[in-house]
Amino acid sequence: MEAEKMAKLTYFHGRGRAELIRLTLSACNIEFSDEFLYESKEYLKLIDDGKLLFKQLPLLEIDGRNLVQSGAIVRYLGRKGGLCGKNEDETVQIDMLYEGGRDFMSSVLPIGFRPEAEVLAEAKSKFLPKYMPLFEKVAAANGTGYLVGNSMTLADLSLLEPLLSYVEYFGSEIFNDYPALKKLYETLTSLDTISAFLKGPHRQRKNDEKYISDVKIVLAR
Amino acid sequence: MEAEKMAKLTYFHGRGRAELIRLTLSACNIEFSDEFLYESKEYLKLIDDGKLLFKQLPLLEIDGRNLVQSGAIVRYLGRKGGLCGKNEDETVQIDMLYEGGRDFMSSVLPIGFRPEAEVLAEAKSKFLPKYMPLFEKVAAANGTGYLVGNSMTLADLSLLEPLLSYVEYFGSEIFNDYPALKKLYETLTSLDTISAFLKGPHRQRKNDEKYISDVKIVLAR
Repeated sequence: MEAEKMAKLTYFHGRGRAELIRLTLSACNIEFSDEFLYESKEYLKLIDDGKLLFKQLPLLEIDGRNLVQSGAIVRYLGRKGGLCGKNEDETVQIDMLYEGGRDFMSSVLPIGFRPEAEVLAEAKSKFLPKYMPLFEKVAAANGTGYLVGNSMTLADLSLLEPLLSYVEYFGSEIFNDYPALKKLYETLTSLDTISAFLKGPHRQRKNDEKYISDVKIVLAR
Repeated sequence: MEAEKMAKLTYFHGRGRAELIRLTLSACNIEFSDEFLYESKEYLKLIDDGKLLFKQLPLLEIDGRNLVQSGAIVRYLGRKGGLCGKNEDETVQIDMLYEGGRDFMSSVLPIGFRPEAEVLAEAKSKFLPKYMPLFEKVAAANGTGYLVGNSMTLADLSLLEPLLSYVEYFGSEIFNDYPALKKLYETLTSLDTISAFLKGPHRQRKNDEKYISDVKIVLAR
């Protein structure tokens, strides 16, 4: 693939709102480069160049388009990669589960912006007890190792992101009462595309002080 | 349409996360009934009945489906009603603008849950100055009275919701420097479907103390 035609993802040097896009690009086998911003002037240049419709990151340059808004970007990639279901029954089910996965993930995103211990305590007392049983039920009823149908969809990727984070922070005991989610996690992380992503250079580190500081510097907050 | 087959929207007796669904149903000319919850036991019954995938409202019962998650519901209706664009170029543009409209609307949703004056002050100092010029640019460049193409899409409806609220709170002066948004607002509110919705029983009143109290009682907070 020629360098100028390769997809390019621009964001801060961390996970945030870009990590699901990286995961989805990888799941779709789309080659891309990560562009990290460290300075406010780089951000302002993107705005001046007219690339940021809402003056927000992430930005995905792909197929001659400047895509923004993480939900819209992930759905674009999902349509392109066949991760949005085979018919309307699957499509709407995937979309509902996708949104639930984003709500589940919202418990992890503030780590570092708010004290880590506080965010994780809230996750443990509110989010895990709410979302794990709900997703377990769906995964168990479907029974294939995926949430919908018999192959990976955006629903799985949206759920996988918080699961990866929770395993990282709390260990695989999070699956103790949730065998169908354990199977789903193992199924997804064993896929060549996902496994390569998790071991490769596109996977970003947990939120740390450097990342939080980068975000504040770039956005001049 | 037989009563048992008519779409039914269940939510609190107010706008919140349901109003864009009401607007979209109306724009698609889909007949529906509003079911309002006033008591915690009604909410718990919906959960017991397995109708609320994530134990959250709104719920739209339509075409034999129990749909939840407002974004997923609106996109379902958009696909059904042909409001998602004629090709991928339009579809992804509509989806990005839809998400931007939701961010713009997020400035209005907390009214009443936080003091109205405080929310409106923040809207005036942060949200209007950010979003009005951005949407004006898109509307002016397209030039048809719609954001994308030459007919109504989900992008227009997502933007129309906050515009309706801002006109209500601040008057039509909000359009003083934004002629293309004024044209868009007039175009949309002149459509038979939208005009009928705004004058009809489905349109809910502004957030008030009763609505806030209903929400807290139903969710037992």
